[in-house]
Amino acid sequence: MLVENVLIVDPVDGEYVGTVEFEDVILEIRKSDKSSFEHILMPAFVDPHIHGIKGIDTMTASQEDFERFKEYEALEGVWYFQPTTVTCPLDELRKIKIPSELKLHIEGPFIAPKRKGAHSESYIQSPPRDVHELEQYLSLSSIGTITVAPEYDSFLDFAKSCELNNIRISIGHTDATFAQAKRAFENGFRRITHFPNALSPLHHRELGVTGAGLLLDFTLEIIADGIHCAPEFVNLVYKVKEAEKIILVTDSISATGLEDGNYMLGDLRVKVENGIAKLSDGTLAGSTLKFSQAVKNFAKFTGCSLKELAMVSSYNACKDLNLNGGRIKEGYPAKLVLLDNELNIKKVWNF
Amino acid sequence: MLVENVLIVDPVDGEYVGTVEFEDVILEIRKSDKSSFEHILMPAFVDPHIHGIKGIDTMTASQEDFERFKEYEALEGVWYFQPTTVTCPLDELRKIKIPSELKLHIEGPFIAPKRKGAHSESYIQSPPRDVHELEQYLSLSSIGTITVAPEYDSFLDFAKSCELNNIRISIGHTDATFAQAKRAFENGFRRITHFPNALSPLHHRELGVTGAGLLLDFTLEIIADGIHCAPEFVNLVYKVKEAEKIILVTDSISATGLEDGNYMLGDLRVKVENGIAKLSDGTLAGSTLKFSQAVKNFAKFTGCSLKELAMVSSYNACKDLNLNGGRIKEGYPAKLVLLDNELNIKKVWNF
Repeated sequence: MLVENVLIVDPVDGEYVGTVEFEDVILEIRKSDKSSFEHILMPAFVDPHIHGIKGIDTMTASQEDFERFKEYEALEGVWYFQPTTVTCPLDELRKIKIPSELKLHIEGPFIAPKRKGAHSESYIQSPPRDVHELEQYLSLSSIGTITVAPEYDSFLDFAKSCELNNIRISIGHTDATFAQAKRAFENGFRRITHFPNALSPLHHRELGVTGAGLLLDFTLEIIADGIHCAPEFVNLVYKVKEAEKIILVTDSISATGLEDGNYMLGDLRVKVENGIAKLSDGTLAGSTLKFSQAVKNFAKFTGCSLKELAMVSSYNACKDLNLNGGRIKEGYPAKLVLLDNELNIKKVWNF
Repeated sequence: MLVENVLIVDPVDGEYVGTVEFEDVILEIRKSDKSSFEHILMPAFVDPHIHGIKGIDTMTASQEDFERFKEYEALEGVWYFQPTTVTCPLDELRKIKIPSELKLHIEGPFIAPKRKGAHSESYIQSPPRDVHELEQYLSLSSIGTITVAPEYDSFLDFAKSCELNNIRISIGHTDATFAQAKRAFENGFRRITHFPNALSPLHHRELGVTGAGLLLDFTLEIIADGIHCAPEFVNLVYKVKEAEKIILVTDSISATGLEDGNYMLGDLRVKVENGIAKLSDGTLAGSTLKFSQAVKNFAKFTGCSLKELAMVSSYNACKDLNLNGGRIKEGYPAKLVLLDNELNIKKVWNF
């Protein structure tokens, strides 16, 4: 395969016009003397936090549904994603038939009741001391990420046990103090779920997890739909953290790509109006954001460079999840997305 | 006067060992080859927001009190300060006998009732369209700074009228939205009073004046007592804004330097316990912070360089208030403070 005279955007080497030759891996890149180009070639995207799309919900998806899930994501430029669960009885997790090449993001049940968001409070529980209690319900190899509230006494034991099993800990749905968040940070747990949603807020006398996320060197998931947080807030996070520490996620639910109406998220009823998904009490219940739109929004909200956009849409998530990808460089897998100047997707290669 | 082999700290030229010769102006600076030094020489400090100290209150001070006020400030290393009023009937302002070399900081009455802090709500009013209504009470030449809430319809007219009369506008005690704060910013009003106290808070869907202060290029007053905001918050502001945009203030009241007990701030009763001044409802009522302590605290909270410390303690305020000072450089006035390695004041020159 040959893609000629495109603007190549690599999160490390930057932006330059050139031609890329690839099969399943990138074989050769030839820089061009030209400065003009018609299309932009970026590393294909990664979405580490997505509940569903077009009627598919991670909690109820069949093997066939997961195949469609992958196809829909490919249309969004996403080559890798973590189907995400909601807080549920642990027995429910057993029923999920995730394909072997994907891994789950387990969001709850080890979260804080006060910051439950759109998760069922009745299933919330403290984390077990050891990840092997979870293993009774789910093979550890199927778990990529677990969102956990760090204020539980058992947090550190559990989190360290997860790490030994290559499971990424993400701090989220938490009412922790700044000191508790800092303790997690100092123990090596440096990732935060959908910042700053469902986190203890920033107050100037108690900075909470929101303040810790801004001040300490955490990596932050961001839902860049302009609804979960204002465009100016996304810009503030970009200004404070810089692109190196931001991972775009959609947090999208099954209603994504479908019409407004009534849907389920786990066992909670969700109403979608004007694309905004809420519980009956007004709590936001995931998003209907598509990844390609998240990429456009982040560029618009922040005015970032394309190199930075490649970081937040792919490279940072690859580093975080230890995936071989996120680069346009010889030897890397050819997971690539071709875009026009307005960041519309023209073509995706996700061999 | 000759000060030999000190660490000279200039906010522009940086830190170096040398000898300074001065009378009322700095005559000559000779760099030394030595790297060791016993003392640190910094530009003397500026406090643009101070209600009182050691029993003196701007609202009731006699001419003699203002002379003592200057002497007490000199002991703190402060060569220039703006005695600050509280919200009161405008008639009360008439009675203030400020020495001609000083200027007042008028805090209220043009503030927001919802964010009144320790100001009497009954005297709060919207700003007049023109500063000359204020002039009926106070000569404009005696006013250095006015803290105003920008959400009033009359704000822009009033603020522009102030500017034409060399009066600095500082946004404060305000419940403005992010959009309202941005409007003020875009019209050139780029200073915020005791950030983030008495400001609309940062929410991720409505950033308020707190968010505007962080995101936009505002200059921020900070009370670095560790009480008005947590040390980590001061550090966050330093990280986000950098030293160039921070001005240390004490906001101190007459109880400063005196024992715990009952005091007045304007016509409000204040109780000071463990050095913390509060109204009976628990609202913070100014501070008992001394400027020399503010300087030590800021260094400790942020780990900033001495060059940056010279910015936040003097240079930035001088630029903001259009004062000739804040530098250690030939030709500048010899307003200087000598400190030991622990930032204790050893000597002050404030000719």
